[in-house]
Amino acid sequence: MKEVFASIITIGDELLIGQTIDTNSAYIAQELNKIGIWVKRRVAIGDGRQEILDSLAAESRQAQVVIITGGLGPTADDITKPTLCDYFGGTMIVDAGALQNVVQIFERLGRPMFDRNRKQAEVPDTCVVLPNLRGTAPGMWFEKEGTVYISLPGVPHEMIGLMQSSVLPKLKTTFELPVILHRSLLTAGKGESEVAEILLQFEAQLPNNVKLAYLPSYGMVKLRLTAKGSTETEVAPVLEQQFSALQQLVQQWLVVAEDIPLQEAVLNLLKEKGKTVATAESCTGGYLAHLITAIPGSSAVYQGSVISYANSVKEGLLGVPAETLATVGAVSEATVTQMARGVQQQVGTDYAIATSGIMGPDGGTADKPVGTVWIAVANRQEVRTRKFQFRFDRKRNIELTAVNALNMLRQLVVETA
Amino acid sequence: MKEVFASIITIGDELLIGQTIDTNSAYIAQELNKIGIWVKRRVAIGDGRQEILDSLAAESRQAQVVIITGGLGPTADDITKPTLCDYFGGTMIVDAGALQNVVQIFERLGRPMFDRNRKQAEVPDTCVVLPNLRGTAPGMWFEKEGTVYISLPGVPHEMIGLMQSSVLPKLKTTFELPVILHRSLLTAGKGESEVAEILLQFEAQLPNNVKLAYLPSYGMVKLRLTAKGSTETEVAPVLEQQFSALQQLVQQWLVVAEDIPLQEAVLNLLKEKGKTVATAESCTGGYLAHLITAIPGSSAVYQGSVISYANSVKEGLLGVPAETLATVGAVSEATVTQMARGVQQQVGTDYAIATSGIMGPDGGTADKPVGTVWIAVANRQEVRTRKFQFRFDRKRNIELTAVNALNMLRQLVVETA
Repeated sequence: MKEVFASIITIGDELLIGQTIDTNSAYIAQELNKIGIWVKRRVAIGDGRQEILDSLAAESRQAQVVIITGGLGPTADDITKPTLCDYFGGTMIVDAGALQNVVQIFERLGRPMFDRNRKQAEVPDTCVVLPNLRGTAPGMWFEKEGTVYISLPGVPHEMIGLMQSSVLPKLKTTFELPVILHRSLLTAGKGESEVAEILLQFEAQLPNNVKLAYLPSYGMVKLRLTAKGSTETEVAPVLEQQFSALQQLVQQWLVVAEDIPLQEAVLNLLKEKGKTVATAESCTGGYLAHLITAIPGSSAVYQGSVISYANSVKEGLLGVPAETLATVGAVSEATVTQMARGVQQQVGTDYAIATSGIMGPDGGTADKPVGTVWIAVANRQEVRTRKFQFRFDRKRNIELTAVNALNMLRQLVVETA
Repeated sequence: MKEVFASIITIGDELLIGQTIDTNSAYIAQELNKIGIWVKRRVAIGDGRQEILDSLAAESRQAQVVIITGGLGPTADDITKPTLCDYFGGTMIVDAGALQNVVQIFERLGRPMFDRNRKQAEVPDTCVVLPNLRGTAPGMWFEKEGTVYISLPGVPHEMIGLMQSSVLPKLKTTFELPVILHRSLLTAGKGESEVAEILLQFEAQLPNNVKLAYLPSYGMVKLRLTAKGSTETEVAPVLEQQFSALQQLVQQWLVVAEDIPLQEAVLNLLKEKGKTVATAESCTGGYLAHLITAIPGSSAVYQGSVISYANSVKEGLLGVPAETLATVGAVSEATVTQMARGVQQQVGTDYAIATSGIMGPDGGTADKPVGTVWIAVANRQEVRTRKFQFRFDRKRNIELTAVNALNMLRQLVVETA
């Protein structure tokens, strides 16, 4: 079987000036990977005709699949479509299906339709039109000299819809694809290099078609095994065997043996045990609640939160004594202990998490510098507290606090339930 | 003045399989832009020797500055440094300052140090070492045939530290740079193509060195003017003149005439008026609170939130009558109205926001399909409510709810204060 390589070209000045973070490429890469297409390169370029032409030519030399996103909007900075027409030949025609789609969308929105909107239904007659059910710009599928080129809108949810409804199914019938399988696990408590020392021999004995990758994130290390072959029956047993060996080696630090985020692992654990949890957040300011509630089905376990940004809320809703706040302060063991107990009582949950700290850039003192954080986790019997000293910016301090709080809760649930 | 172009190469298989979203490139592009360096291309490649060598050669043909991130970790999938040594010549030596830094970091963490950690202090003797105060891998600065190459670690906060302390200052002294200035504003209530129709003549009359870009986001449209020239005194007045003309043309839909997010604009507005706000979140599950509290200084205005994921919390902490929940349900005008009033009373704020909806993928009914959302905003006198029907996935439904809630609050504050 011949390997199929892909390249992703994202078009748009907004990516080059850094105004937009490119989340599309990660999604496309994941989805292509699942069907056995390996993304070899990703290139971001500006809205310039010559740059687009050059990139199409250059990427097709390395890839059998070139996916192009962006540059299909209705405003004047978009020149992708005429450039594609030049590159692939043909003339621009109005696609009847695409035009009907544009008309319907504008009717539904009750917005006036302009020539520039009608133009979104124009495509080179050398392409196969991929219908976009979520927006006005259709996808386009071209073939030239053995390479497939797919142009998709840059709006993430439109691109995702087109990938699922058209691109992935069509790629599967166009190419004979290898099987690529991944298994990932998450560890906590050891640094990347310590984990690597433990896995030195394991890595050396891996078969040629299996690769190990280290992905550090927030003081934890994710390990990913990737196996490649021609059939699932050939690849899966090899991967499973290596993955169990890997689990054995790191079991002491294992958080979860699936490729899911920590918050999902914690929710699954609580769901299995039929337990509920609430949070009381000061310094994380709702981020912990957001991480949890972003997971579908979290409402079965997660009851709610009191975000006590002001001390009056810590007193009024969570029962932190005014005296505690006045003497040891909001960022203290006594405060987070009472916050956890307070929200647990108010909401009536089995478990609770509380956070209080100084996230920066201001608010630090000699005694409690920026990055000082207290976390408490509680079940019905016990409250565990821990002090952290982070050294980063506001965003990262918030993220690290949330991740450490979730991991403290996970440990409490595992060890005491 | 000669224009200086940059290219960013990110190295790492994790970017090509989509496990990691590349936020580094956006940051680097923004910072380079501020000092007058235009990023022409961004390329992501895997951890392969030949790919790295080919990309260094290819990018240097188009750019005078090539920034390389990633591939400097202590584990075996990292081969960047030896490859750089091949490309630029020289031999690997231990840098005394970098070694001291590694030793100190491991002492502070209390973790054992391995050979692979010591190796992080090795650099090609053809580079200038850029000290990394936030991690073990030093930055490296190379020059070859008129192009500057800078290798930085991929860990975002380490890369950011190096950019600020070494890379940007050194680039400013190495090149004679043009001035690039941006002014942005945010509009709400008109689609991208409607705004473009309004600005047709404005865009046509723009001088050659000023460009207008449309950046749609969450049903709002951001407009960015970019002007380029050789001195600030030449560029700034031209940009200011065009920016005031632009503001005039869109004033009816103007949210904020600065390049700040909506939540920051709302906080600034409340701060100016000396007012406070609290939130009561069901379907947004803390995301609204997180957006607000991620802004430094938000505690002056934002008091807290009750995240009432469970109905018992809506009743107990927010005073939503059990009867309301039993008859019209949690996703209703009556419920969000009481949630807003409830949190306002509990926390004692001037303003309040409440959200309740069905975010998906499950939980929809014929009556209230996934995407049904009620939002309430309140001041001391008045509660305004609005129903939305979003049609997206959970993540985007949550984001759209938060953005619309913030914009409803903004309108209430502007119109009634």
